[in-house]
Amino acid sequence: MSVPIFDSFLTTTDIIDVFDDVAVIQGMLDFEAALARAQAAEGLIPAQTARIIEKHCVADTFDISALIVAARRAGSMAIPLVKALTQKVAAEDAEAATKVHWGSTSQDVIDTAAVLVTRKALALIDGELNSLAARLLTLAQAHTQTPVLARTLMQPAQVTSLGFKFANWAAPLVRSRTQLKALADNALQLQLGGAVGTLAVMGDKGPAVAQRVAADLGLANPLANWHTQRDEWVRLGLEVAVLTGSLGKIATDLSLMAQGEIAELAEPSGQGRGGSSAMPHKRNPVSSMIALAAAGRTPHRAAALLANMPQEHERGLGNWQAELAEWPGLFLSAHGALTALHEAMDGLVIDTQRMRQNIDALQGLIFAEAVSIYLAGVIGRPAAHHLMETLTARAVTEKAHLSDVVRAAVNADEALRTQLDLSALDALFDPVNATGSGAAMARTLIPQLLAQLA
Amino acid sequence: MSVPIFDSFLTTTDIIDVFDDVAVIQGMLDFEAALARAQAAEGLIPAQTARIIEKHCVADTFDISALIVAARRAGSMAIPLVKALTQKVAAEDAEAATKVHWGSTSQDVIDTAAVLVTRKALALIDGELNSLAARLLTLAQAHTQTPVLARTLMQPAQVTSLGFKFANWAAPLVRSRTQLKALADNALQLQLGGAVGTLAVMGDKGPAVAQRVAADLGLANPLANWHTQRDEWVRLGLEVAVLTGSLGKIATDLSLMAQGEIAELAEPSGQGRGGSSAMPHKRNPVSSMIALAAAGRTPHRAAALLANMPQEHERGLGNWQAELAEWPGLFLSAHGALTALHEAMDGLVIDTQRMRQNIDALQGLIFAEAVSIYLAGVIGRPAAHHLMETLTARAVTEKAHLSDVVRAAVNADEALRTQLDLSALDALFDPVNATGSGAAMARTLIPQLLAQLA
Amino acid sequence: MSVPIFDSFLTTTDIIDVFDDVAVIQGMLDFEAALARAQAAEGLIPAQTARIIEKHCVADTFDISALIVAARRAGSMAIPLVKALTQKVAAEDAEAATKVHWGSTSQDVIDTAAVLVTRKALALIDGELNSLAARLLTLAQAHTQTPVLARTLMQPAQVTSLGFKFANWAAPLVRSRTQLKALADNALQLQLGGAVGTLAVMGDKGPAVAQRVAADLGLANPLANWHTQRDEWVRLGLEVAVLTGSLGKIATDLSLMAQGEIAELAEPSGQGRGGSSAMPHKRNPVSSMIALAAAGRTPHRAAALLANMPQEHERGLGNWQAELAEWPGLFLSAHGALTALHEAMDGLVIDTQRMRQNIDALQGLIFAEAVSIYLAGVIGRPAAHHLMETLTARAVTEKAHLSDVVRAAVNADEALRTQLDLSALDALFDPVNATGSGAAMARTLIPQLLAQLA
Amino acid sequence: MSVPIFDSFLTTTDIIDVFDDVAVIQGMLDFEAALARAQAAEGLIPAQTARIIEKHCVADTFDISALIVAARRAGSMAIPLVKALTQKVAAEDAEAATKVHWGSTSQDVIDTAAVLVTRKALALIDGELNSLAARLLTLAQAHTQTPVLARTLMQPAQVTSLGFKFANWAAPLVRSRTQLKALADNALQLQLGGAVGTLAVMGDKGPAVAQRVAADLGLANPLANWHTQRDEWVRLGLEVAVLTGSLGKIATDLSLMAQGEIAELAEPSGQGRGGSSAMPHKRNPVSSMIALAAAGRTPHRAAALLANMPQEHERGLGNWQAELAEWPGLFLSAHGALTALHEAMDGLVIDTQRMRQNIDALQGLIFAEAVSIYLAGVIGRPAAHHLMETLTARAVTEKAHLSDVVRAAVNADEALRTQLDLSALDALFDPVNATGSGAAMARTLIPQLLAQLA
Repeated sequence: MSVPIFDSFLTTTDIIDVFDDVAVIQGMLDFEAALARAQAAEGLIPAQTARIIEKHCVADTFDISALIVAARRAGSMAIPLVKALTQKVAAEDAEAATKVHWGSTSQDVIDTAAVLVTRKALALIDGELNSLAARLLTLAQAHTQTPVLARTLMQPAQVTSLGFKFANWAAPLVRSRTQLKALADNALQLQLGGAVGTLAVMGDKGPAVAQRVAADLGLANPLANWHTQRDEWVRLGLEVAVLTGSLGKIATDLSLMAQGEIAELAEPSGQGRGGSSAMPHKRNPVSSMIALAAAGRTPHRAAALLANMPQEHERGLGNWQAELAEWPGLFLSAHGALTALHEAMDGLVIDTQRMRQNIDALQGLIFAEAVSIYLAGVIGRPAAHHLMETLTARAVTEKAHLSDVVRAAVNADEALRTQLDLSALDALFDPVNATGSGAAMARTLIPQLLAQLA
Repeated sequence: MSVPIFDSFLTTTDIIDVFDDVAVIQGMLDFEAALARAQAAEGLIPAQTARIIEKHCVADTFDISALIVAARRAGSMAIPLVKALTQKVAAEDAEAATKVHWGSTSQDVIDTAAVLVTRKALALIDGELNSLAARLLTLAQAHTQTPVLARTLMQPAQVTSLGFKFANWAAPLVRSRTQLKALADNALQLQLGGAVGTLAVMGDKGPAVAQRVAADLGLANPLANWHTQRDEWVRLGLEVAVLTGSLGKIATDLSLMAQGEIAELAEPSGQGRGGSSAMPHKRNPVSSMIALAAAGRTPHRAAALLANMPQEHERGLGNWQAELAEWPGLFLSAHGALTALHEAMDGLVIDTQRMRQNIDALQGLIFAEAVSIYLAGVIGRPAAHHLMETLTARAVTEKAHLSDVVRAAVNADEALRTQLDLSALDALFDPVNATGSGAAMARTLIPQLLAQLA
Repeated sequence: MSVPIFDSFLTTTDIIDVFDDVAVIQGMLDFEAALARAQAAEGLIPAQTARIIEKHCVADTFDISALIVAARRAGSMAIPLVKALTQKVAAEDAEAATKVHWGSTSQDVIDTAAVLVTRKALALIDGELNSLAARLLTLAQAHTQTPVLARTLMQPAQVTSLGFKFANWAAPLVRSRTQLKALADNALQLQLGGAVGTLAVMGDKGPAVAQRVAADLGLANPLANWHTQRDEWVRLGLEVAVLTGSLGKIATDLSLMAQGEIAELAEPSGQGRGGSSAMPHKRNPVSSMIALAAAGRTPHRAAALLANMPQEHERGLGNWQAELAEWPGLFLSAHGALTALHEAMDGLVIDTQRMRQNIDALQGLIFAEAVSIYLAGVIGRPAAHHLMETLTARAVTEKAHLSDVVRAAVNADEALRTQLDLSALDALFDPVNATGSGAAMARTLIPQLLAQLA
Repeated sequence: MSVPIFDSFLTTTDIIDVFDDVAVIQGMLDFEAALARAQAAEGLIPAQTARIIEKHCVADTFDISALIVAARRAGSMAIPLVKALTQKVAAEDAEAATKVHWGSTSQDVIDTAAVLVTRKALALIDGELNSLAARLLTLAQAHTQTPVLARTLMQPAQVTSLGFKFANWAAPLVRSRTQLKALADNALQLQLGGAVGTLAVMGDKGPAVAQRVAADLGLANPLANWHTQRDEWVRLGLEVAVLTGSLGKIATDLSLMAQGEIAELAEPSGQGRGGSSAMPHKRNPVSSMIALAAAGRTPHRAAALLANMPQEHERGLGNWQAELAEWPGLFLSAHGALTALHEAMDGLVIDTQRMRQNIDALQGLIFAEAVSIYLAGVIGRPAAHHLMETLTARAVTEKAHLSDVVRAAVNADEALRTQLDLSALDALFDPVNATGSGAAMARTLIPQLLAQLA
């Protein structure tokens, strides 16, 4: 693996491959080939020269370990790669060799390679993001009227709609997907500035060559190089971090609801998944774990991108290299988390009965506010308030259900009995009724999210 | 000051005031007043009740120190504030007091207050950002053809256009301004969800009330509450961090160019500005210092926002509160940095003569590539390459200017003398000529940026 | 308050006061007075001059708001303060005024003031740290044999000793206390280097003056200035961050155990503490919230300290100022968290009955490993393994307690009945027995921690 | 390479190998073997069983890629590894297979493996740290009296001793070395707690087994497991981050002094080192770059360690895994930076002549304070102050050397001429004299540091 072992088990093979040494080197060579083609098209170098250069732009033919060792001395991966490419070309045509990498600088080839592999990474992320959001919205639709405890400050609060909860999980994912596309349009751009960003060597053909290289590689062509203006690039990386934060929120809720004592949701079981031989009752939420690990690491990579933005003059010393080295981790974590949660949601075990039991265990106290409001409408707010204080205290002390306490109190008091509608009171304690406003919100929200996702 | 002393001298009084205790409390009270008005308009509470509540929503009449002490016990600033407001209202009308904050939750009032003060902070930032970018573009236009050393990896590299450099400083600022406006459209939104985000207490009037409150406060009305979906809010904070990173880049370059040994730029002097009594030669770049301090702090606040995104269920425990506490610092730093750099740029001392001297001190070696290309066109690339190796080595050894060495070599060799055009050769050593491609890029870039700024 | 409102409710008034503007300015003035005394003692300035300077070193007599405004221009808090002090002295004795701050530099006075206020902050922290650790160890001793579910990966795992759990909470606090003392010995040191760290102005009296100032202020006297060698200072700040991480771990566990569905621990209730008027069943864990907020912010301040370590040459530009501005927050958060958890632990509600219920709810499955080992000793491991697979599956399917399933199986099988000791089997299902090894570890650990704390 | 390509060129092959997949897996297997040996010694398992287990603990015989894939499902690297090891053992002895990993938990094997590879990493770091500090102290001794500009806030300030500057670079390295050793004594400890940290399965033999395993592996044996008490481990990681910060400070200064316009220091040149084909004058400071990249990344890894400290209950979900994944990067960066700076310092080019020229270019203004003090002693401070204001202004305006201006002024004024000692005045302008106090400090500091290093 081209990532350390304790990284590799938290991500996917697919995205590890995207940032693999060979893939990055191939990205660099793709740049060199496209540059040569563009220069040939603009008459700056012979077409035959471009063809020879292009022919040798095959990553597998390079000794990458040796390149890395040389790069440590040179201070750049591009210098030994260009040297090795030049040697290959020179073995065939000495004159052509003088045109390898011509008019370009190390940062041009490296940044563009980073852009090219990032494009692939974004495609992987977009796929999983789309699937996960769609799956959550399907779950949301199916559970619009399923009552579940809402919890605030880590305490049961009131009843909400499970579908609303799922839709709220999906909403930031849908927004991140839109945002990633918009930011990628700007950030997936050619880097081509030459030694100091002015394309001076290519004379007045510089801009035309840049336009051709960008078109060839399918990248945006920026108004100016971005050697030390990293904002568009960093903004893209930050959005991946926002996405990972949103995934962390889902995993937090999921792992809390999957606790043995709550047991409302469970990740799917299955061969080798989250089990424990010594503890037959355990089903570890491994997807949540992967997403939480991602959310626990990514903010710090985002900070590294930001902290390394003040890059000196026309090429940074240390900060550019730091940014580049931090970059892949953002995508490795995000794709690992997306894939893990996608798997979890596909096989999600939803125990609606347990959700009801957890509601019931609160003895109706979570409906006290609703009851109080109803009573106030009938007997006035002060009387209602006073009565409810007494009744909720009684329910707590006697470990009784508040609905029973209320019904007993009404039955024992003729005045109340005549004024109040017991069936209306009972309805206030119905969890499904209590999901009403949440369900209504879900029904507004879900179609909007589906439309954005389409 | 409502910020610690070593913070306060790095920012401005204007933005400290935006986040001042009284201003935040007033934001909370503005929410309560707007909520009451909206509920009255929807017939949920009497109009008179709304008027009484509104009348007491005046921050100055509250004992803020006492509120803070109570908030530590309550776990929220809103609880004691609502209690105090209720008491004020109750003193006038007991029934009205039961409608204070009705159907809303602590997080509604706090988040909305944070949004309201942030709107003011963004206005301040937008003003300075606009002025600074405009000033940089004015400088860029004035110096399109001014030659200055481009430097890569902290070493002099080649010549570029000073105007291009200034335009490159401005470009990320212009982009951040556009981005901040777009993100604010989404992030400056009402928070109103009630206890668990479903507005249940207000029944089917909830959405209409929310729409009215949002309109009243001039905020966007979101599809759903964002109690624990913080992505839009965090994205706005991250853009402030991107902006600060771009300001840090400017300050880095400025402070490097202002070094005594380089002395190409200087911050303005003036009464009490960056001087040193003991060291009459010193002019400390205090604006750069403030911007660099901002850039050295902000990435970590951005990380805090991201790290606190996984907020539990319907209201987070600790993470929401952490996010909120980290928030103002982003704006304090950014406004401090903007204001400082704006001041620096308004009085920027540009020593174009020193820029020339610094170029000249490199003995023409930075033009070696251009000369080599010219020679290759005349005597073939291998001969040109070989010749230049000899001549640059000679220039280095003899501490001579490469143009003199080249001219001497040409004069000493009859073949060369007849083939080459000495005046063309001389032109290659002309720094103003060397700014050509950079100047052309600046002339493309500047109008685009001006258009975006307008 | 001298901190923003959403900071102030997460910390304590005591520690806010430590870093208050007046306190910091007084620290700076204490340095100036001690410097003058030392120089007088070494004969560098007249004793009378020192007395006059000393007399004016009273923070309350300065217009701090005006100093802050001037500091923004000057680039340092020290410059306007020294100027103002000089004016006060000059009004009394013009010659004495020339000796104010003599031979010292801005960073000397500011860093030393930061050290002086930090010493007070550490004393506050040490007090709370000691009390909290002691309280936890008292709880640990009382609950050595109380069974509680151990949970791994957010799932119930096996039974442990509650006392062991409490002791494990205390252990890192005890270590941090030891570490803070050791690091403070190095970090609470005088800063006195003069303009460039060489004390040049004071000639060969420099070292003697430094020694006197250090002794006067009760600080360590370093071998050399630490203007840009921040490691000892940063190390101290990082230890505060480690402490806050350990507090966050406690708060995490506490808030998880206080969830309504688990309800093993609860924070104390009481007037205005964590309640909710609309939700009578709620008791918000506000101490946990404060500690979690601290743990969610502090890592980023620690990163800021580290990121700003590469300070240029003999005084940093921006990074030193950033470090200083980030510094107080570390202590504000830590003291807020310590105080909150101390309060929580002092009134901690421990529901040992609920702990047993939560154990029982797992139907004995958590003892499967122990039973399997016992069976293996009697009927061989393969047979035991096979039998237990069947029985645990049956317990899960039938929602029966594993002990009942096992007993039934034994009773139904004469061979087993004769080989096995049913009372020994029953003992394996006894939660108190199951705490044995944890209790033993607690009994080893607690006295060691108490000894370190003493 | 087992790290991504843009990481690998910033570090060394040696330390990449330490954290290589095979090395980590071998560490895990070393734990399993030691555990079996210890259990055999305590009579818990047969000696022959231990021998068979031990025999199969050879990392090369495992299919690591397959393990990683399985680990993603299992949620832990240990589960598939233990399973595979068990299969190997079972193929030889089915009974022995039941004792593999017996009484231990996934985290035991993984944490202990992390400790074992970290011990090797620390040894590598200690070697380079020692060499680099020693080299810096040798340079410091050689240049005690070499004058060099001290610079504050990125501006030339006064003259200091180059040796003092070098010694100040070395001092934090020496302190970090001492600190790393002390912290490693605590942090390089066995992890062995079993399922929930109580070693319950091994009954009362648990502690004895732990002691044997620790002794076998040469690790400290902690009082209790540290499954979720990460403070000692994190503290070690933070010290690596402090070290990297100190290296970043050196690299900052070095790269600033190596700027073309300052040119006081240069990194060594040599085949393939930091050169540029197109720009013959360039010598890129590649060692500084590597150290700066390390310093630009490491603070964020440190933050990740701290942020992931609040690990839940008896084993964390996501946070433990995040911490582990962030860990190697700290050491990779530190060793890369140390090695790079060691190489730079070994071949450091010191241009003392240029240092003098840079001093001289300031026209003696940096000595104004010293001259003013001398004058004050003769003609009184007010007269001296007034005179110097005039003379420094004249020097600035006339671009004359202050010594010439002063001498002219003295010569032009008979009173002054008789009072003043011109040779004493001249001496004040002597840069070597001006290094006096710095040199004295260096002579105090260097032996102390050498003693600590020995």
